[in-house]
Amino acid sequence: MKNLLVAQSGGPTSAINATAAGVIEAAYTSNKVDGVLGAQNGIQGVLEEKFINIREKIKSAYDIELLCQTPAAALGSCRLKLKDLDKDKEQFEKIIQIFRKHDIAYFIYIGGNDSMDTVDKLSQYCAQNGITDITIAGAPKTIDNDLVGTDHCPGFGSAAKYIGVTFAELERDCHVYAAKAVTIVEVMGRNAGWLTAASALARVNGAKGPDLIYLCEPAFDSDRFIEDVKKRLDKQDSVLVAISEGIKDKNGKYISEQVQSGAVDAFGHSYIAGSAKVLEELVREKIGCKVRSIELNLMQRCAGHIASAIDIEESRMLGMKACQCAIDGQGGIMAAVVRKSDYPYNAEYTAVPVRDVSNKEKTVPADYINKEGNDVTQKMMDYLMPLVQGEARQTYKNGIPVHISLYD
Amino acid sequence: MKNLLVAQSGGPTSAINATAAGVIEAAYTSNKVDGVLGAQNGIQGVLEEKFINIREKIKSAYDIELLCQTPAAALGSCRLKLKDLDKDKEQFEKIIQIFRKHDIAYFIYIGGNDSMDTVDKLSQYCAQNGITDITIAGAPKTIDNDLVGTDHCPGFGSAAKYIGVTFAELERDCHVYAAKAVTIVEVMGRNAGWLTAASALARVNGAKGPDLIYLCEPAFDSDRFIEDVKKRLDKQDSVLVAISEGIKDKNGKYISEQVQSGAVDAFGHSYIAGSAKVLEELVREKIGCKVRSIELNLMQRCAGHIASAIDIEESRMLGMKACQCAIDGQGGIMAAVVRKSDYPYNAEYTAVPVRDVSNKEKTVPADYINKEGNDVTQKMMDYLMPLVQGEARQTYKNGIPVHISLYD
Repeated sequence: MKNLLVAQSGGPTSAINATAAGVIEAAYTSNKVDGVLGAQNGIQGVLEEKFINIREKIKSAYDIELLCQTPAAALGSCRLKLKDLDKDKEQFEKIIQIFRKHDIAYFIYIGGNDSMDTVDKLSQYCAQNGITDITIAGAPKTIDNDLVGTDHCPGFGSAAKYIGVTFAELERDCHVYAAKAVTIVEVMGRNAGWLTAASALARVNGAKGPDLIYLCEPAFDSDRFIEDVKKRLDKQDSVLVAISEGIKDKNGKYISEQVQSGAVDAFGHSYIAGSAKVLEELVREKIGCKVRSIELNLMQRCAGHIASAIDIEESRMLGMKACQCAIDGQGGIMAAVVRKSDYPYNAEYTAVPVRDVSNKEKTVPADYINKEGNDVTQKMMDYLMPLVQGEARQTYKNGIPVHISLYD
Repeated sequence: MKNLLVAQSGGPTSAINATAAGVIEAAYTSNKVDGVLGAQNGIQGVLEEKFINIREKIKSAYDIELLCQTPAAALGSCRLKLKDLDKDKEQFEKIIQIFRKHDIAYFIYIGGNDSMDTVDKLSQYCAQNGITDITIAGAPKTIDNDLVGTDHCPGFGSAAKYIGVTFAELERDCHVYAAKAVTIVEVMGRNAGWLTAASALARVNGAKGPDLIYLCEPAFDSDRFIEDVKKRLDKQDSVLVAISEGIKDKNGKYISEQVQSGAVDAFGHSYIAGSAKVLEELVREKIGCKVRSIELNLMQRCAGHIASAIDIEESRMLGMKACQCAIDGQGGIMAAVVRKSDYPYNAEYTAVPVRDVSNKEKTVPADYINKEGNDVTQKMMDYLMPLVQGEARQTYKNGIPVHISLYD
């Protein structure tokens, strides 16, 4: 009896369920897998033995298709990071005991940095203790696109598509009035500006897109920002700005912390404002024209109805890859994409040692950002373009997307 | 020589260009219309003689199709309300002079309350001054759905669909963690709660949707709200709340004004926070669990990629209706929809005196809201359901929607 366990972790994306679907497809079609289980709420659910019998929930090709179309982790998620191997052996022993109890021979963990750390530690523990009947593999996931070892991350393409589409629509919206106005849109990304860069995709069909784009990698200079905006306002009525939530000044201090320090609400609490809100106040103070800030908030990571077809398909294939590696006894790896060419887009699916991935962060290279630090370069566009191609299928009923639910 | 002039006004929607397309289609196929002009930026553009030659911009059926798929006013918009007839005759004289100069026999104004006021005043001026060679008609538009005289307003169905879809996706997203958390989503609507009610559409395929829905019509009681949230948190981890931006206390004071009065930013300005942000602080203070606020912001009015097929088609037909009325000499009217049945949805297109529409507001009837004031009733669902059916066509190129631009 060899069962397979799949779990999801970290922030939700529109594609993480496609990766689970890929794992399930590979498991269902392998003659080395008996039961297929899902852990509810990631590794936390493993520790609590909250298991879902996947064969009872995903019974048909239609169910698999719906799973691919459902945003956010259908198996639930967690933020639990395992302790170091030498500090808490008990936790690892407990997990292995639970695996043995449920005849789990293969464990596929889908997630970002922290999840790959879990895959790494569990794999190390197995290696150190001569455990050869359990194989652990990782499948990448993160809209932040900050995992090393893979050209890009599942979920990023769909978030990038949502952001590109939304900026295209916001540009149309902001353009309608004949009056000076600034619109500042905050995009997710504390340390990596990939998602903010995707705002430039609004230009690919000839539209103007955002006028200014500030990623979180270069130091953000508030005076330069005001000058940039003023210069655009001299020539046009509406100025549309994209900024990363994580823009920082030259000392590495978040802009959101810096400017609002004096703000206190009616309860005496500090106001927690995003970077866009802080810059909105700054524009109001320094320029005085109409200004509005917008946060794309959770919508950018769960807008499954506008998912990228390429992203969903690749996410699925990376789930299959991770599953096949595990079944073949190749543990301690993360499934990854290697890009062969941009136009036409061509990629291969491989496996990289998870040790090289965990606890690292891939930020935007300097030559993907223009010299002025207020836009992206063609290199960035060439990188982004293939990842948002095609519109993923979405089944509608009563005018609303149909989602699948694996637990209450 | 009889030219037709079309213009757009008020806040953008995903369907206002479909209405312009309907006007243009009816004009192009009528033998009573020569030139077709668009005023750039509504009645303000008329006064400034900023005219666009539509026949040069919209040349093919494909252009018309693209116009229907492009969100936000392609002819630009304005917020100009004409002065009273007896107060500023000059303004009206000037408009008529400009119409005569450009051989404009028909003027179709697409917009909300203020725009219908313009149609009304201009029509009255013509009537009072024996002007019979110029006919002025209105076509409705507003995501707020607050125009009287019509079952619903073009643009509302698409915004409602965006909101229903987004709440369905947000519910999936918020559901993934096994920890107590409240998510408060603010929806547009200062005086009418129609858009907030549309959050309930997230439930139509069996999902839970928002746990609590507060429209702006009933008085909002902050203590009751905290009790409602606590009660839900006792039974479940994630609580999703929809609120109108315009929720007010029993004295009619906006919640957003009330609670934040003490908040001052680093510049000494009062913080301008939305109602969701204010309630976020309240939940943090009174309950202390994880809490997040989200504003659907401009996205809810310009997300053309998820427009309702029914809404786009009806918007188009209302444009045609208004145009045909004008061509037939029937001025001072607004095109309108009369609902004949909910299931199957059946509607007729008519014209109502614009006098009965302008400066009025249609709010949500009491029996569309539950007794507790924290949800909607089946009556509301029956009203909303037909309006979000079908997904409007969207042409994509390079993974991003193709929009048409009528001026720089």
